Amino acid sequence: MARLIKQRDLVLGKSPGSLVFIGNQKIDFTTLRIIDYNKSSLEELERLHFHDIPDISLDDNIRWLSIYGLHDTELIDDIGGYFTIHPLILEDIVNTGQRPKIEEYDDHVFVVIKIVRFNAEEQKVNSDQLSLLAGPDYLLSFHEQPIDVFKPLRERLRKPKSRLRENNVGYLLYAILDTVVDNYLAAIESLGGRIEDLEDMVLEDPDPEVLDRITKYKREINFLRKTIHPARDLVMRIGRLETGLILEPVIPFLKDLQDHMTQAEESLETYREMLTDQLNTYHTTVSYKLNDIMKVLTIFAAIFIPLTFIAGIYGTNFQYLPELQFKYSYFIFWAILILVALGMLRYFKKKGWL
Amino acid sequence: MARLIKQRDLVLGKSPGSLVFIGNQKIDFTTLRIIDYNKSSLEELERLHFHDIPDISLDDNIRWLSIYGLHDTELIDDIGGYFTIHPLILEDIVNTGQRPKIEEYDDHVFVVIKIVRFNAEEQKVNSDQLSLLAGPDYLLSFHEQPIDVFKPLRERLRKPKSRLRENNVGYLLYAILDTVVDNYLAAIESLGGRIEDLEDMVLEDPDPEVLDRITKYKREINFLRKTIHPARDLVMRIGRLETGLILEPVIPFLKDLQDHMTQAEESLETYREMLTDQLNTYHTTVSYKLNDIMKVLTIFAAIFIPLTFIAGIYGTNFQYLPELQFKYSYFIFWAILILVALGMLRYFKKKGWL
Amino acid sequence: MARLIKQRDLVLGKSPGSLVFIGNQKIDFTTLRIIDYNKSSLEELERLHFHDIPDISLDDNIRWLSIYGLHDTELIDDIGGYFTIHPLILEDIVNTGQRPKIEEYDDHVFVVIKIVRFNAEEQKVNSDQLSLLAGPDYLLSFHEQPIDVFKPLRERLRKPKSRLRENNVGYLLYAILDTVVDNYLAAIESLGGRIEDLEDMVLEDPDPEVLDRITKYKREINFLRKTIHPARDLVMRIGRLETGLILEPVIPFLKDLQDHMTQAEESLETYREMLTDQLNTYHTTVSYKLNDIMKVLTIFAAIFIPLTFIAGIYGTNFQYLPELQFKYSYFIFWAILILVALGMLRYFKKKGWL
Amino acid sequence: MARLIKQRDLVLGKSPGSLVFIGNQKIDFTTLRIIDYNKSSLEELERLHFHDIPDISLDDNIRWLSIYGLHDTELIDDIGGYFTIHPLILEDIVNTGQRPKIEEYDDHVFVVIKIVRFNAEEQKVNSDQLSLLAGPDYLLSFHEQPIDVFKPLRERLRKPKSRLRENNVGYLLYAILDTVVDNYLAAIESLGGRIEDLEDMVLEDPDPEVLDRITKYKREINFLRKTIHPARDLVMRIGRLETGLILEPVIPFLKDLQDHMTQAEESLETYREMLTDQLNTYHTTVSYKLNDIMKVLTIFAAIFIPLTFIAGIYGTNFQYLPELQFKYSYFIFWAILILVALGMLRYFKKKGWL
Amino acid sequence: MARLIKQRDLVLGKSPGSLVFIGNQKIDFTTLRIIDYNKSSLEELERLHFHDIPDISLDDNIRWLSIYGLHDTELIDDIGGYFTIHPLILEDIVNTGQRPKIEEYDDHVFVVIKIVRFNAEEQKVNSDQLSLLAGPDYLLSFHEQPIDVFKPLRERLRKPKSRLRENNVGYLLYAILDTVVDNYLAAIESLGGRIEDLEDMVLEDPDPEVLDRITKYKREINFLRKTIHPARDLVMRIGRLETGLILEPVIPFLKDLQDHMTQAEESLETYREMLTDQLNTYHTTVSYKLNDIMKVLTIFAAIFIPLTFIAGIYGTNFQYLPELQFKYSYFIFWAILILVALGMLRYFKKKGWL
Repeated sequence: MARLIKQRDLVLGKSPGSLVFIGNQKIDFTTLRIIDYNKSSLEELERLHFHDIPDISLDDNIRWLSIYGLHDTELIDDIGGYFTIHPLILEDIVNTGQRPKIEEYDDHVFVVIKIVRFNAEEQKVNSDQLSLLAGPDYLLSFHEQPIDVFKPLRERLRKPKSRLRENNVGYLLYAILDTVVDNYLAAIESLGGRIEDLEDMVLEDPDPEVLDRITKYKREINFLRKTIHPARDLVMRIGRLETGLILEPVIPFLKDLQDHMTQAEESLETYREMLTDQLNTYHTTVSYKLNDIMKVLTIFAAIFIPLTFIAGIYGTNFQYLPELQFKYSYFIFWAILILVALGMLRYFKKKGWL
Repeated sequence: MARLIKQRDLVLGKSPGSLVFIGNQKIDFTTLRIIDYNKSSLEELERLHFHDIPDISLDDNIRWLSIYGLHDTELIDDIGGYFTIHPLILEDIVNTGQRPKIEEYDDHVFVVIKIVRFNAEEQKVNSDQLSLLAGPDYLLSFHEQPIDVFKPLRERLRKPKSRLRENNVGYLLYAILDTVVDNYLAAIESLGGRIEDLEDMVLEDPDPEVLDRITKYKREINFLRKTIHPARDLVMRIGRLETGLILEPVIPFLKDLQDHMTQAEESLETYREMLTDQLNTYHTTVSYKLNDIMKVLTIFAAIFIPLTFIAGIYGTNFQYLPELQFKYSYFIFWAILILVALGMLRYFKKKGWL
Repeated sequence: MARLIKQRDLVLGKSPGSLVFIGNQKIDFTTLRIIDYNKSSLEELERLHFHDIPDISLDDNIRWLSIYGLHDTELIDDIGGYFTIHPLILEDIVNTGQRPKIEEYDDHVFVVIKIVRFNAEEQKVNSDQLSLLAGPDYLLSFHEQPIDVFKPLRERLRKPKSRLRENNVGYLLYAILDTVVDNYLAAIESLGGRIEDLEDMVLEDPDPEVLDRITKYKREINFLRKTIHPARDLVMRIGRLETGLILEPVIPFLKDLQDHMTQAEESLETYREMLTDQLNTYHTTVSYKLNDIMKVLTIFAAIFIPLTFIAGIYGTNFQYLPELQFKYSYFIFWAILILVALGMLRYFKKKGWL
Repeated sequence: MARLIKQRDLVLGKSPGSLVFIGNQKIDFTTLRIIDYNKSSLEELERLHFHDIPDISLDDNIRWLSIYGLHDTELIDDIGGYFTIHPLILEDIVNTGQRPKIEEYDDHVFVVIKIVRFNAEEQKVNSDQLSLLAGPDYLLSFHEQPIDVFKPLRERLRKPKSRLRENNVGYLLYAILDTVVDNYLAAIESLGGRIEDLEDMVLEDPDPEVLDRITKYKREINFLRKTIHPARDLVMRIGRLETGLILEPVIPFLKDLQDHMTQAEESLETYREMLTDQLNTYHTTVSYKLNDIMKVLTIFAAIFIPLTFIAGIYGTNFQYLPELQFKYSYFIFWAILILVALGMLRYFKKKGWL
Repeated sequence: MARLIKQRDLVLGKSPGSLVFIGNQKIDFTTLRIIDYNKSSLEELERLHFHDIPDISLDDNIRWLSIYGLHDTELIDDIGGYFTIHPLILEDIVNTGQRPKIEEYDDHVFVVIKIVRFNAEEQKVNSDQLSLLAGPDYLLSFHEQPIDVFKPLRERLRKPKSRLRENNVGYLLYAILDTVVDNYLAAIESLGGRIEDLEDMVLEDPDPEVLDRITKYKREINFLRKTIHPARDLVMRIGRLETGLILEPVIPFLKDLQDHMTQAEESLETYREMLTDQLNTYHTTVSYKLNDIMKVLTIFAAIFIPLTFIAGIYGTNFQYLPELQFKYSYFIFWAILILVALGMLRYFKKKGWL
C-alpha cells in the first residue's frame, strides 16, 4: 500500500488548478496511442508527440486516445487546450492521489478510477490511476504507465462485427470500466485465496509469521475497499448521466456491471470478516497454548520440587538423625518418593491436566 | 463454504454475455422435466433433449420446465433462443456465482436465488443456484443438480383441487420461493441446534476442539447470512412487480413469506451473537483456567522452595556448624519446616487461593 | 430461553395456511372465557366448548372472548369459521413462534405480541404468545396458557364507571397492550436488579460462577430485546390504523404507551451495555489477578533459588574447599544469605511489586 | 447512578393516569415560590399551600410558579385542576423516572427534562427531574427538591431592563433550558477533568483502583448520555412549536442552545472513547507487565536452576567421584558456574530480555 | 490535545451574548491588518487600534480585515458595533471552544472553523479558532494568534492578474477555506507518516514506548476527526448559500474543496483503523512473546528440576545406600542424567517448543 496522501507540501499554498504532477514517475517517456474506428474501418497509431497526431479523417469515426505517463505536464496542458478541458480536471489527471469520481459537463464526462493488480510476488495490491474523458466522438484515457489490461479489449475492438464497433463512445466507456471491475474481482480472488489458506494455520500453528500475514492481508483488503468503494458510486451514477452518451441498449450492461461491483464489495467484506475472525482465533489459540505450556511447567515443578525437598532433608548433616541409621531407610525413602509422585499425578489427572 | 468468487480468470477479458459455465459440474447429463397443467388436467414428461419436448397442447395450460444441470451451455443457448431470453440472463444462469436478485422484463421475470441444505455429516451448509424465469404461461427453473426439495411441491400440484392448480404462474413462483425459504429456516434450525449445544461446553471444557467448532459454525452462519440477505430484498420486491404475474389474492401469502424471511434473518442474527458471546466466554474461561494453573504452581513453589532452602543449609559441610551437634536439632528442624509450611498455607488462604 | 425456531420440520413442504400447532402444549384443556359488557351492564361466562357460547344479547355490547390453550386446532378452526378469519391468521395464531406484528384488515385488526414473565427461581425470562383480533364489537384473545396478568384489567372492567367501560374496543385493545408493556418493564426491572448486583462481584471476586451469571443474563437480555423490539413498531403503528377502532381520546394514552416502550428499550440497552462492561471488567480483573499470582511466585522463586544455590555450593564434597575450614564461615555464610535476600527484596520494592 | 426503573410494581395493573409518586422523597415539605413580573414591575412570594396564592394582579403580568417537592400528590392534583392539565401530564410530573420529552397542547407546552449536578465528593452525577408547563402567561416548574441552579436566573429577572423582562414566557422557558444545558456542560467538564487525570495512571500504574475508576466514570458518562441525548431532541423541537410561545427574536438564542447541546454530546462521546481507550490500554499494559514479571522469573530460574544442579552433583556421596579428590576442583567448579551464568546472561541479552 | 470544554464556570449563569474571552491568551497585543483591493489596485495597512483604520477609499474595493488576538473584548465590541454584528456572533468569536459552523444572515455569512498545525517536536496537533465574517465588500477574519498560513494567499493576492483579484468576496472566502483544508491534509500527512512508521515496530518490538505512541497518535487522530468533521458539513453548505456571495464560476472550485474534505476524512479513517489494528497486533504480539518466555522457563525448569532431584537422592546420608559403594556408580549416574535430559529435549521438540 502506498502512502495515502502524496507530497501534499508540493501544492501547499499554490493556486487551485496549477498543474503539478503528484505521484511516482513510473516510465521515462510519455506515449500516445490512437485508435480511430467506426463500423467499417479501424486505424491504429502510436506517437511520442501530440502535434504528430493527425485529425480524425472520417466524420463518423470514434477516436480513442490513450496517454501513458502523466509526468509530462506540458503535454497534458496541450491536450487540455486542444479539447478545452477545465483546469481543475487537468489538475485531477496529473494528481494521482485522486478519489474515484465521475463529473458531468455539457458535452463530456470525466471519470477517475483506479486500476488494481495483485502482485503475487510481493503479495500486495498495486494501483494506478486511470482518468477517462469521454466526449461525443472521442475518449481520452490517461494512465500512469503502459498497462496491458486493455489488450483483450483492443482485440475485441479490432473484430469488425463486435459490439464495440457497433456502438457509440458510451459503450466504449462501459467496456473500459467493465475491464477495470473484472480486474478488481481477479485481484480480490487472488488475495482471497491466500486468506483462505491461512484458515488452518491460525488454529494449528499460530506463530508471528501468521500474525504478520494476517496483518498484511488486512491492510491490502482495506486498501482495496478504499479503492473500490467510491468506484461503486461512480458506476451507479453512470447510468443516470444526462449527456446523450449512454444509449438505451447499454443500460442492461451497466446493471450487470453494478452487480459485479456489489459482488466485489461483498467478497471484500467477507474476507475482511474472515481476517478479523482469524485474528481473534489467533489470539485465543495463543492464550490456549500458554495454558498448555503452563500445565507442563506446573506438573514438572509440583512433582519434583517436593521430591527434591524430601531428598534435601536426608542430605542434612544433623548429628542425630534417627532415620539415617535404619537399614531399610533408603528403600522406605524411595517408597515415599514414589507415593508422593503418584499422588501428584493422580491429583493432576483429576484436574484434567493430563 | 465454497470459494466465493469462482474461476474469474475464465471470463477475464471476454465480451459480456458470453456463455461460460462457472461452477462445479455436479451431474453427468442434463435432464429436462416438464409439467403441463391447468385446473382440470396435468401431464408430466421427462426428456434428455430440448427438441424432444412437444409444444403446449392446450391454450390455458401452464408449463413448468425444470432444467437440471447447467454445464450443457448449448442446451441453455437453445432454450434461450426458443424463449428469446437476453444473453446477459443466460450468462447469469450458467455462472453459478450469482448474487440472488430479481429482474423485471416486459412480459417475464427473472429470479436468481440459492437453495441451501445443511449437510449434517460434514456439519456444513451446501448451496446450489436456482434460476427462475416466469413468463405469462410458463416457468423455467434452472438447477445445478437434481434436488428433491420440490418433491412435496410437485405432489401438491398433482392434487386436482389444490391452490396451485387454481392459480396462475405467479402463485407457482411464490410456492417455489416459499419452499426455498422453508429450507432456509430448516438449515438455520439444524445449525442453530448445534450452536446451542456448544453453550455449556465453552464454559466447562474450553479446548481447541470447541474453538474449532465455534469458528466453523461462525463461518457457516456468515455464509448463510450472505446467501439469505439479498434474497430478502428479492422477496420484498416480488410483491411490487408491475407485470401482471402477481394477482391480488397472492399478496397476503407474499407478506407471510416476507415474515418468514425476517424470522430467518433474526434467527441468524441471534445465532451469530451467540457465537460471538461463546468466543468471548471461551477466551475468558481460558484466561481464568490459566490463573488456576498458576495458583497451583505458585502454591507448590512457594511452600517447597523455602523448605528446600532450609534443608540445603543443614546439608552444608561447614566444619563449625553449631546446630548440627545439638541432639534435638533434627526435631527442631522439622518443627521449623512445618511452621513455615503452615505459615505459607495460611498466607495463601488469606489471599483466597485455596 | 426456548429454542428460537420450533419444529420447523413439521410444516416443511406443507401448503401455507395449514393449521398445525407449533409450540409446547402447556395445559390439558382449552378454556373459553367471555366478558360481555357495555356502559351499564357486564356479564361473565366460562365454557369448554365453542358451541356452548350464546350470541351477544344486547346491541351495544362489547364481547371479549379469551381462548386459553392453542393445541385444539379444531376449535381454532371453528372460531375462524364463525368470525371469517383468513387461514394465514389462524396459522399464525397456532404457530407460537411468530414475530410480534400488527395486520390491518377491512373491519378488524390482528395483533401478535409476547407476554413475558421473569421466573425468579430459574432466573430466566419466560414468554407466551398472545394473539389479539379486534373487530367492531368484539375482541378475541388467544393465549398459550391461562395467565393471570390480565386479572387487574378484568377487575377494572368490572367497575361500572371505569374508563374501560366508557370506551370502545380500541381502548380495550390499548389496555391489554398497556398491561403487556407494564409486564415488560417489570421483567426488565427484576432482571436489571440482578445485573446491578453483579457489579461489585466482578471487580472483587471474578470466579467462573460470576462469568456464568453474566453470560446467562446476557442471553436473557438479548431474548427480551428480540421479543420487545418488534413490539415497539407494533405500538407505533397502532395509532395510525385506518379502521375506526382507535378514537381521538385514546391517542394520548397510546403516546404514553409508546413512551413506556421507549423506556423499556433504553433500559434493556443500558443493562446490555452494563453486562458488556462487566464482561470486560471480568476479563481485565482476571488478567490483573494473574499478575498478582505471578508476582508472588517470582518473588519467592527469585529470593530462594539463589539462596538454595549458595547452600548447595557448601554442600559439595570437594576435598579441598577452603571456606569450610574457617571457624566463622557458617556465620559469614548466613550473612551472605541475608544480604542476598535483602538485595532481592529491595529490587522488588523498586519494581513496585511489594 | 440510581436504579433506572423505579418501583414499577407500585403501578403494575393500575389504571393509566393514576397519581402515584415514584421516586425518592428528598424534602419534607412542598414549597411554592411565585414570581409575577412584567416590563416595569416584579413581585415575589413564597407559600406552603396552593390556596394561599393570590390571582395575578395585572393583566400583562407573567407568573412563574415553582413547586419544590413532588410527593404531595394532592397539591399536584389541585394545581392540575386549577390549570386544567391532562391527567397523563400530572402522572408524568410525579413519576420521576420520565424520559425527557416535549409535548405540545392547544395553548400550553409540557417539557420534562433532567437537571444534573456532579457530586465531587462521591464522584458521581446526580439528577433530578424538572417538569415545565408553559402557558400564555404562566410557567409552572415542578422540581424534586429545592435546587439553587436557577438562582442566577432569578437575579437576572430582578434587573428591570434585562432581556428576560422584555420578552414573553417563551424566552423564560428558553432561559430555564439554557441554565439546565449550562449545567450539563459544567457536569461534563468536571467529570471529564477526572477522566483526563486517569490518562497517565493507566499507562504507568495500572492497578485495580484505576480499573475501578474507569468503570465508575464509564457508568457516569453513560448515565449522562442517556440523560442528555433525549434532551437534544427536545431542544430541536422547541424551535418548531406551533403555539405562539416562541417569538422570532428568540430563534437565534435557541440555535445557540442547540449548539451547546451538540457540544455537550460531542464532549460526552469524546470522553466515552477516551475511557474505552483507557480500558484497552489498561488491559494491554497489564499484559505487558506480566511479560516483565515472567522475564524476571525466567531469568532467575534459568540461571540458578542449572547452577544448583551442578552444585548438587558434587554434593552426592558417591564413593568414587574422581573430581572431588583433585586439589583445584573447587576453583574449576566455580569457573564452570560462572561460565554457565555468563552464557545464560548472554543468551537473555540476545533475546532482548535484559 | 487541549481541554475540550474550557472554563465553562466563567459563563455559568451569565446572560447569553455576554462577551467573555474563553481560551488561552496566546499574544500580548491585538493587531489589525487591512488589505484593500480591486482589479487594478491593492493597498496594505497594519494598525493597533480600530479607530486608526481609514474608510474604504474606492467604491469597488474589497476590504480584508484580519484581527489577530481575541482577548481584547472591547475592540471586538467596537468592530461588532461598526459592522452591526449580532451579539451571539461576537460571543462565538471570543469563545474559542466553538464547533465549526456556518450561519447565514441577510447580507453576510458567519463561518467558524479551526486551523490545525502539526507540531513535529511535541508530536501533537495544535488548533486555533478562525472566525470569518463575509459581507458584500468586506471580509473580517478573527484569529487567536498571528498565523502565517495565509502568507502564500496574500502573495497570490498581490499579483495583479490573479484569480483572487478578478473575483468577489466569495472567492476570497473560498481561498481562505481552501488554505485551511490544505493545512488539514498536510497535518494528516505528517501524523500519518509517523503512524506508518510504527507498523513494523509493533510486530517486532512491542514495548510500552510503542503503546504510548499508539495511544498518543490515536488521541491526535481523534482530535483531528472531531475538528475536521463539522468543517465538512460547513463546506457542503457554503455552495448552497442564498446570499449572492458565491457566484457561478466558483462552484467547481467549491466541489474541488469538498473532494479534499472527503479525502481528508477518508485518510483520517484509514489512519484510525491502522492504529486500531496496531493496538490489536501489539496486544497479540505481547501475548505471543509471553508464550515464548514461558517456553524457555518451562524447558529449563523441566530439564533441570528432575536432574537436581536425582542428584539430591545421592546427596542423602543414608547409612545403607547400596548404589554409592559401587565403583562405576558415578558414571552410571551421569549416564542417567544425560538420558533424562535428552528425553526431555526430545519431548519438547515433539511439542514444537524448540
